[in-house]
Amino acid sequence: MSERFENFHDDPNIKITDGEGFVLSDHRTDYIGGFEKEKNAEKKLEKDIEKLSDLQERLYAFDHHAVLIVFQAMDAAGKDSTIEHVLKGINPQGCHITSFKRPSTLELSHDFLWRSTLALPERGKIGIFNRSYYEEVLVVKVHPEFLMSQNIPSVRRAEELNDDFWNKRYRSIRDHEKHLTENGYLILKFFLNVSKEEQKRRFLDRINEKSKNWKFEFNDLKERACWEEYMNAYEQAIRNTATPDCPWYVIPADNKWFMRTAVADIILNRMEGLDLKFPELPNEELIKLDEAKRMLEEENQN
Amino acid sequence: MSERFENFHDDPNIKITDGEGFVLSDHRTDYIGGFEKEKNAEKKLEKDIEKLSDLQERLYAFDHHAVLIVFQAMDAAGKDSTIEHVLKGINPQGCHITSFKRPSTLELSHDFLWRSTLALPERGKIGIFNRSYYEEVLVVKVHPEFLMSQNIPSVRRAEELNDDFWNKRYRSIRDHEKHLTENGYLILKFFLNVSKEEQKRRFLDRINEKSKNWKFEFNDLKERACWEEYMNAYEQAIRNTATPDCPWYVIPADNKWFMRTAVADIILNRMEGLDLKFPELPNEELIKLDEAKRMLEEENQN
Repeated sequence: MSERFENFHDDPNIKITDGEGFVLSDHRTDYIGGFEKEKNAEKKLEKDIEKLSDLQERLYAFDHHAVLIVFQAMDAAGKDSTIEHVLKGINPQGCHITSFKRPSTLELSHDFLWRSTLALPERGKIGIFNRSYYEEVLVVKVHPEFLMSQNIPSVRRAEELNDDFWNKRYRSIRDHEKHLTENGYLILKFFLNVSKEEQKRRFLDRINEKSKNWKFEFNDLKERACWEEYMNAYEQAIRNTATPDCPWYVIPADNKWFMRTAVADIILNRMEGLDLKFPELPNEELIKLDEAKRMLEEENQN
Repeated sequence: MSERFENFHDDPNIKITDGEGFVLSDHRTDYIGGFEKEKNAEKKLEKDIEKLSDLQERLYAFDHHAVLIVFQAMDAAGKDSTIEHVLKGINPQGCHITSFKRPSTLELSHDFLWRSTLALPERGKIGIFNRSYYEEVLVVKVHPEFLMSQNIPSVRRAEELNDDFWNKRYRSIRDHEKHLTENGYLILKFFLNVSKEEQKRRFLDRINEKSKNWKFEFNDLKERACWEEYMNAYEQAIRNTATPDCPWYVIPADNKWFMRTAVADIILNRMEGLDLKFPELPNEELIKLDEAKRMLEEENQN
């Protein structure tokens, strides 16, 4: 593409508002927008983080919207470090992060949207999903045998699954997000798009550096072996759930500095779009404020 | 209607599978089906309660379905006593009742389906909603000022609400119920349809009998004054959310004995339709059972 962006909320390399015809391999993992130097991106990130902190306060005070930020990615793409770097400036009281790992027995005994619904942020807050209900059409699609522990009546055997089953899940997700959006949620969905080569480099790094060993599990290689299946599952998920109200952002993730800058830029821009205002008090409340001021000032005179 | 039913799951006086054209006033509140005597209905109820207890055990053992039973009605229609009488035979461990009263601040800070989603039964269980998410298109429709405490961005003033707003709520509910049904939920929705005259009689009863005084609140009369608005809201709700998979059952409620018998009959019949089986163990598990038996029997010989 000829144009080179430094704002990414409208960059067609990144934002997918209409899933139809989406092809993941069209999106480069090493795209760096219009930045000529890492330094420039870092300066922008710093400024954006400051603005984000102010916007979070407005979100809280205005108390009409909630922001749900979903991160999905392959292992080592940088979900955790992006969350850490982009959101570190924010008041932790206004922000709640949920990491979705192996579901509990109780969670498996409910419909597949239940456990993440419990974790939704309330109005005025930012909720971060480190992985999400999308796992139900990603890891579960790559390993359909996981469905067997969900005891869904229509699913007797993993081999019997057909497109209809997955299409219903995509529809459930679309309906759920539509409902939330209509009820005040801003939903931002990020796919951190790392290349297979870059993942290899980061895995080797985790193995070679003692202090990073804890981040590596042997099982990660088994998932890596399913790379193509995962890419297909991501492509299908994005194709079926990217809408104008709830677009997907496919973030090039081979350069961590670019990824963080792009994510912060998009969160900031979309939150600015909410037009968050500090509540203005009605006249009778302003009169009460004056009264309170008078009472406080008179205290000392007694 | 000429036919007189003693099974009510398919009685067109009661079951609404297609809301379009539904007119509440077409449904008599004093209908008693084919029963000539109360005694006959009571005999049937007793038998059905026994069968229900057996079915609940199968539901639990099979562990593929959950049953959600929703009760909606005007005050004094008999929600509580119906729940008590129909479900008293059931193992309380397999059944959970949630009464939805005034929502908490945290609940108001989420989308309107959130608090009832938390209370959904898990697979293998029966969940009873004494009132439900339908209050959001019933009491809230009659008193739109309640919406103001929900801080929904699109709703600035109660007077600005239009059909579009309620149509979106109906659609959210339909989508939610569709999603649950596809994921193993059997949803049974009962509207206990009492007449205004019968409510008056029961209110007077609550006022005249000292032991029943606690059941009456002065505010009940205020709601009674909105009778027509409520009937309109019920009619609209049923019109917009009765579907073949999730029908509404409009239960004539002027005769409590009839109401209970009809409700039990419908729950029983719909649960029978799930074809609940005790799980059959695979061969290798049967061999283990034999082994376990042998070990237990040999214990005494040492």
